[in-house]
Amino acid sequence: MAKFVAVLVGLVLLVGPLADVSSAASTLKELTSGKGQRQQADELHDRLSITSNTIEDAKAKSKQPTPGQHNHDQAKNQKITINYETRWFRQLVDHFTWANQDTWLQRYLINKDNWCGPNCPILFYTGNEGDIEVFTNNTGWMWENAQQLHAMLVFAEHRFYGQSMPYKIDPTLISPKQTKTLGYLSSEQALADYAKLIYELKHNIFDAKHSPVITLGGSYGGMLAAWMRMKYPNLVDGALAGSAPILQFPGEYNCQDFNKIVTKDYEGYSSNCSRSIAKSWSTIRDYGASRGSAGLSALGRHFNTCQPMKANDTDLLLEMLNSIWVNMAMTDYANKATFLSDMPAHPIEHACAHLKADPIDSGDEDLLAAISRASQVYTNSTGQNACLNITDYVYDPMDVLWDFQSCTEMVMPICSDGINDMFEPEPFNLTDFVQSCKIRWGVDTQVNKIKTLYGDKNLHSASNIIFSSCTRDPWSAGCPQESIDANQIIVLKCPGAHHEDLRPSGPNDSDEMRQVRKQELDTITNWIQKHYSNVRKFARNETLVWASRRTDSSEN
Amino acid sequence: MAKFVAVLVGLVLLVGPLADVSSAASTLKELTSGKGQRQQADELHDRLSITSNTIEDAKAKSKQPTPGQHNHDQAKNQKITINYETRWFRQLVDHFTWANQDTWLQRYLINKDNWCGPNCPILFYTGNEGDIEVFTNNTGWMWENAQQLHAMLVFAEHRFYGQSMPYKIDPTLISPKQTKTLGYLSSEQALADYAKLIYELKHNIFDAKHSPVITLGGSYGGMLAAWMRMKYPNLVDGALAGSAPILQFPGEYNCQDFNKIVTKDYEGYSSNCSRSIAKSWSTIRDYGASRGSAGLSALGRHFNTCQPMKANDTDLLLEMLNSIWVNMAMTDYANKATFLSDMPAHPIEHACAHLKADPIDSGDEDLLAAISRASQVYTNSTGQNACLNITDYVYDPMDVLWDFQSCTEMVMPICSDGINDMFEPEPFNLTDFVQSCKIRWGVDTQVNKIKTLYGDKNLHSASNIIFSSCTRDPWSAGCPQESIDANQIIVLKCPGAHHEDLRPSGPNDSDEMRQVRKQELDTITNWIQKHYSNVRKFARNETLVWASRRTDSSEN
Repeated sequence: MAKFVAVLVGLVLLVGPLADVSSAASTLKELTSGKGQRQQADELHDRLSITSNTIEDAKAKSKQPTPGQHNHDQAKNQKITINYETRWFRQLVDHFTWANQDTWLQRYLINKDNWCGPNCPILFYTGNEGDIEVFTNNTGWMWENAQQLHAMLVFAEHRFYGQSMPYKIDPTLISPKQTKTLGYLSSEQALADYAKLIYELKHNIFDAKHSPVITLGGSYGGMLAAWMRMKYPNLVDGALAGSAPILQFPGEYNCQDFNKIVTKDYEGYSSNCSRSIAKSWSTIRDYGASRGSAGLSALGRHFNTCQPMKANDTDLLLEMLNSIWVNMAMTDYANKATFLSDMPAHPIEHACAHLKADPIDSGDEDLLAAISRASQVYTNSTGQNACLNITDYVYDPMDVLWDFQSCTEMVMPICSDGINDMFEPEPFNLTDFVQSCKIRWGVDTQVNKIKTLYGDKNLHSASNIIFSSCTRDPWSAGCPQESIDANQIIVLKCPGAHHEDLRPSGPNDSDEMRQVRKQELDTITNWIQKHYSNVRKFARNETLVWASRRTDSSEN
Repeated sequence: MAKFVAVLVGLVLLVGPLADVSSAASTLKELTSGKGQRQQADELHDRLSITSNTIEDAKAKSKQPTPGQHNHDQAKNQKITINYETRWFRQLVDHFTWANQDTWLQRYLINKDNWCGPNCPILFYTGNEGDIEVFTNNTGWMWENAQQLHAMLVFAEHRFYGQSMPYKIDPTLISPKQTKTLGYLSSEQALADYAKLIYELKHNIFDAKHSPVITLGGSYGGMLAAWMRMKYPNLVDGALAGSAPILQFPGEYNCQDFNKIVTKDYEGYSSNCSRSIAKSWSTIRDYGASRGSAGLSALGRHFNTCQPMKANDTDLLLEMLNSIWVNMAMTDYANKATFLSDMPAHPIEHACAHLKADPIDSGDEDLLAAISRASQVYTNSTGQNACLNITDYVYDPMDVLWDFQSCTEMVMPICSDGINDMFEPEPFNLTDFVQSCKIRWGVDTQVNKIKTLYGDKNLHSASNIIFSSCTRDPWSAGCPQESIDANQIIVLKCPGAHHEDLRPSGPNDSDEMRQVRKQELDTITNWIQKHYSNVRKFARNETLVWASRRTDSSEN
């Protein structure tokens, strides 16, 4: 059991922070039960592709609010109108062989309100491991700059996430049995989906053969945005890769760095805060294991659990807290946000406000009460949850998908030693990891696959990529840190959390953050201009209107 | 039947010139009959990988001489020693999914005689559609420049050709039944094979983590060399792509251009030569179809066929001649060569010497006799063949493999109109082509696949590629024609035939050809120097010896 938990903790550490997917489960369950996936997708296609779906439509259809919807409210406050048409594109399951010629429908969202017409720019969001609506509603950068760039916005959903399902999968089944279908979940296939969609958007769906295309994404989506430019520079003129840890792979970075940054984020508010969290693990273990039913009952009372705590629940509680502290560091945004959870601006500050006391002086009961209150900044900032359901914060049915990706190629080790960070010691052993993947999925992990495909720290062969790396983001540990001016590999250090630069702007934004966003816009504008100058000779009989439109709008 | 022949002619036109594979059939048959492929490959591995195999060893084992072996004699005349070790590398059948995790053994040939040691350069030949030994023995450029560059030479065999068989295939079977296995034959998978082999050569097989890698290849191998630099610039520092028609795809070039160049090659010697060939098609059809057994008998006599001509053989004879004129144009080399056939220097000159008369003045019998003599420059220049076996020049069991590639993604149309070229009119109809592929292989041809993957005429996103384009080579119709200096996209027009610049140098080489080869060497030397300057910061504790070795050798 200990082994199993260790694997799961490893899983959450590997999965949780990148897996911005908490709301997609119900949609997925709907898609993967009852009717065949193809039939359902076809029905969805009929139902959705011809109507313009705003987020309000989606809200009306959805059974429960999604983070994206919350965020829409936020966006509205900032006078951004988020509305998009939902479309479906028929893709091959396998882009690289002909042994399997099955097809499926990929969802993409599109907004042409600001597009200046034929051959005008396309901003293309390379969807992450989750429902594309979540990312659409959280990537304010694109909505705020579409007008200035006269750009069409496209948000493409990643295969096997959200509603884009090549095959029916069982999100509860971790087994080699599922590898025959889930085996088509890989970054290469996802990039090829995006490439094919971009090609068709340019050549057949729109009159956009000479359009510049900029890929954008945050987190895993940022990795994909950067990799699109690296692998399909014929289709992609540049990439804005927000908090994209493309170097967070074995041999390229130290697995402790991630949790060191998390710890620093809490220390930054007060050392008592991080030290209180550091002390809490053993206290909770003590209550959960050594004090019998009275200890468990005290834990339940302090954390206000919906169900009485059982012995097995202690590990879950620890796992939940680990995940909360990490997620809170990732999303310690300057403005109120609802990305991974509904939280106030600067949530760590709010959490640490409950952990001011020196933990040496605190009694166990006080410490537990304070930890619980701090964690509620994440679990119950609105005060509307009557009690805590731990499993809501530990299990996500979509985790199984990222677990498959991390077991096959996305091996992104995270570890802790309890000395240089505030977590319990949790080493990362690659051999054990690979063995457990073999058992879970029947796969031979390709540890060097990502480096073979996309390279390492030496980015001299890449060009036209902005790697924005927010300094308080734990994932910045795996982000490129040095620009290469000659190639337009531009590292921008933003003062903030996980891809905060891509989020909607807000009243609390620092001048530095505004400056970073402006620099991103200016750089992309330059790439677009360069693109038009390169294609001019290939577009002899076609009008390239962007430059003149730009002049018009700057005159306005 | 007419339809079937049309398809076959189309096939030969699409396949023949690129398919430098005539000698591989016996090896393949051996591999694909009797024992399982895996077992045989393992046996081969045991037998070959630990011994150093020179071409003489191969000759002793082989049942019949190969073009490469002849060429070795030629190479010896020029004092090049061709010797290599044969090795086997375990590859995945499918690099991009985990639904199929089968593995197979890829053959590669290696020579380290001139390698200056850890982190020194690697020249990597990206194998074409044929036995890798043929290309190894015909790529004199690498052997002649290895010493100057202190480079290791690697020649990697393309999956499904030669002895590198992911699955047992039946080279006589054109059927959708074979697509389940042959479906893993694609350029993307072949590039991924090369990428993985390069990664392992650099990181695990040798101490070469910081080695520059230059890919080289001719024809389809040249396309792969260029595409390796485009798709894996993290692993490949530059490419020498000899006669690589990366633009010979629908929408990027005119399908007539290929045969126009062939025709021009013959016209260049005399217009009577090309006009005689142009007239011969109808004369042969007349003899084969309208003159009964006497006509067929006359054809058999003029062409000295081993078997009496039957009615059906006329189409084969026409197909053979078509193929001969094309192949002779491709390999109209300045020096005696044995690449596609054993031929003297400037074979077209020899052929046209038999076709001096104005065809208007020639009687039919004289024309047939002259055409036969001209064709013997290709089929019997040594005079050792007692008679002509037409099928030897029409059917190659390996054609089936290229047919599969052209039906799936390598759609490279060639056509003729009989007005602007010396061939019978043969239109290319894409719809018909796609339909016939569906019947033959059960595949939906991905007509735009290559452009989606690798781009079009606009090469602004590529860098460090030499496209050598020999002006008399019909495939130059599909080669890039304009350099982009800023990106080191360098188009070199060589005065010669199909990737003649990559062949062993010889006594008849023009000054211009020597100059082109020198420019290739200088450019690659610069790329290597640039690579070392880029990796220096990543190789802090490791010695990069190339520069000092270079100084040593220039002092010698």
